[in-house]
Amino acid sequence: MTQKKQPIKGINPAFVPSGKENSVEKKANSKAPLDILNLAQKIISGNHTALSQGITLVESTVAKHQKQAQELIERCLPHTQSSLRIGITGVPGVGKSTFIEALGTLLTKKNKKVAVLAVDPSSSISHGSILGDKTRMDKLSQDPKAFIRPSASGDSLGGVARKTREAIILCEAAGFDTLIIETVGVGQSEHAVHSMVDFFLLLKLAGAGDELQGIKRGIIEMADAIVINKADGENKKAAQMAKTAFAKALHLYPAKESGWVPKVTTCSAIENEGIEEIWKMMTSYFETAISQKFFEAKRAEQNTFWLLQTIEATLKDNFYRDPKVKASLPALLKAVSEGTLSPFAAAAQLLENQ
Amino acid sequence: MTQKKQPIKGINPAFVPSGKENSVEKKANSKAPLDILNLAQKIISGNHTALSQGITLVESTVAKHQKQAQELIERCLPHTQSSLRIGITGVPGVGKSTFIEALGTLLTKKNKKVAVLAVDPSSSISHGSILGDKTRMDKLSQDPKAFIRPSASGDSLGGVARKTREAIILCEAAGFDTLIIETVGVGQSEHAVHSMVDFFLLLKLAGAGDELQGIKRGIIEMADAIVINKADGENKKAAQMAKTAFAKALHLYPAKESGWVPKVTTCSAIENEGIEEIWKMMTSYFETAISQKFFEAKRAEQNTFWLLQTIEATLKDNFYRDPKVKASLPALLKAVSEGTLSPFAAAAQLLENQ
Repeated sequence: MTQKKQPIKGINPAFVPSGKENSVEKKANSKAPLDILNLAQKIISGNHTALSQGITLVESTVAKHQKQAQELIERCLPHTQSSLRIGITGVPGVGKSTFIEALGTLLTKKNKKVAVLAVDPSSSISHGSILGDKTRMDKLSQDPKAFIRPSASGDSLGGVARKTREAIILCEAAGFDTLIIETVGVGQSEHAVHSMVDFFLLLKLAGAGDELQGIKRGIIEMADAIVINKADGENKKAAQMAKTAFAKALHLYPAKESGWVPKVTTCSAIENEGIEEIWKMMTSYFETAISQKFFEAKRAEQNTFWLLQTIEATLKDNFYRDPKVKASLPALLKAVSEGTLSPFAAAAQLLENQ
Repeated sequence: MTQKKQPIKGINPAFVPSGKENSVEKKANSKAPLDILNLAQKIISGNHTALSQGITLVESTVAKHQKQAQELIERCLPHTQSSLRIGITGVPGVGKSTFIEALGTLLTKKNKKVAVLAVDPSSSISHGSILGDKTRMDKLSQDPKAFIRPSASGDSLGGVARKTREAIILCEAAGFDTLIIETVGVGQSEHAVHSMVDFFLLLKLAGAGDELQGIKRGIIEMADAIVINKADGENKKAAQMAKTAFAKALHLYPAKESGWVPKVTTCSAIENEGIEEIWKMMTSYFETAISQKFFEAKRAEQNTFWLLQTIEATLKDNFYRDPKVKASLPALLKAVSEGTLSPFAAAAQLLENQ
């Protein structure tokens, strides 16, 4: 942490320059209306500062900002660049930042425009952020073809994920053609990221013994590729063995709808080894998925998922925020949990209360 | 099928004697009020006919019946017998009925009172029922210590599962101490059953080759035991091999919260071999779970789950049934799926519409 920032209500603290009022916040607080049309035009023209402001607006929890953010998104939506969205997950220490630095740098050299976003619900508690310290991606953060955005803060994974989903639209409107969405393999954040990307990559380390131990439920089933990082020096042999173990394990899982067989490979992000091969593997996936229309179908499915998910989350939020529900829920929960009241009677009572 | 029954609106056709009006339906339609207090007393006294009537009331979709059913459940709830709830799943043809016949008969011999219920959402479409033909459990259906109830019909898994959950309460009030809930391994019904039982048993057959192929996601993780049925005659060796393969595979999964390591065993339900051992295995699970308070904790958790689940299902039902929502949803879904409207804008529009 270079500087400790005080959180400002409704605004992601990571993006408020310390001691200064954030420009979006300033405009929103002043009488002068924030010019959404102008902001949208700047974003569409590829202005990184405007993109940052736009994402800050999206991340704001102030009701007024949320309305403006919706307008901004709708203005940007028709201008979104066709893109590839890559999700990357792995436990802390696996080398996600180094891997993204290596992959991102490779891609900007290939003339791609790369945006890096993160879904990290834990940061909302710790006020840390997986991408908070940009120096962890030293090269990429100084690369004019790259845009790195620390993870949004928020009080729920749903909220954080939604903000990231909206930030993706803004990045694509700003002309970014390759999006990397990072998440730490904690809780349900991988599921959220999986539902917003085209390709989902699981980073692993070689360990002693059974490579499958300790893998979270469902995470292997989501992965389009498993990459064993830190395959360098003395670790090389162990990484090869882990690769074999994973490749075998993958046969135990049902085939993906797309017909794609998840790949297992090794790399050393720090020594920049194997990164080009991983990109080739992804490219071959994208080519097949696009030509077979699976790419398009998956995007359509994801969009529908987010519509239904947003509706259901809002219905639940509204319900549980209702003061009458809040007042009676604890006692009813207790009675139900102890078995003295049926769950259905309790539900009926709460729903009538409303 | 012995008799073809015509469905009567709101009442499970399986329980309407052909040509006659169901007694619950009759009372509900007549001026004379259905005496819920009296029905509850009869159920609590162990009257099987009253129990059947009570379950029919629970299964009715008529609003008036639903209110009465809630009253009945609340009246019965304080009188529920402490029980063991066993879930059994497996694909069609695996021998579920034969297995339940063998296990149920063993248990009534041990002086247990056994109720068999089923969750079978497919029956609502086909009007078939996994337990519809009682002759499939010839012995058990004639056993005075047993009660067999065909699966509830309904237009959604949630609805069917809820009815089964309520029927469990009535069975326990009627003095049944062992409940067997059967489901066919289709769709999400195993999840529903898993969330209402204390012990979840997966029935399998030995097959050629990789025993793990074709197993549905998550189903192994839910199982407290995997039993390979039809381990008889020429099939014995294959069953032993399957047992070994499954036992190995189970090591790939994370340990259960209770610390219970799922067991793998074989049996021949038709030759009544291995059933006693399976009951011993379950008994050892129940003893440990009860003494370590895990049993109680799981029940409390399941009750809470059903409360929240009922609330959320009702909120969604009410929303999607709203005529305004119904009218605008198709066009919005299309725009979102095609990417011309953001999922969040569409959600906001639908939620405002309401």
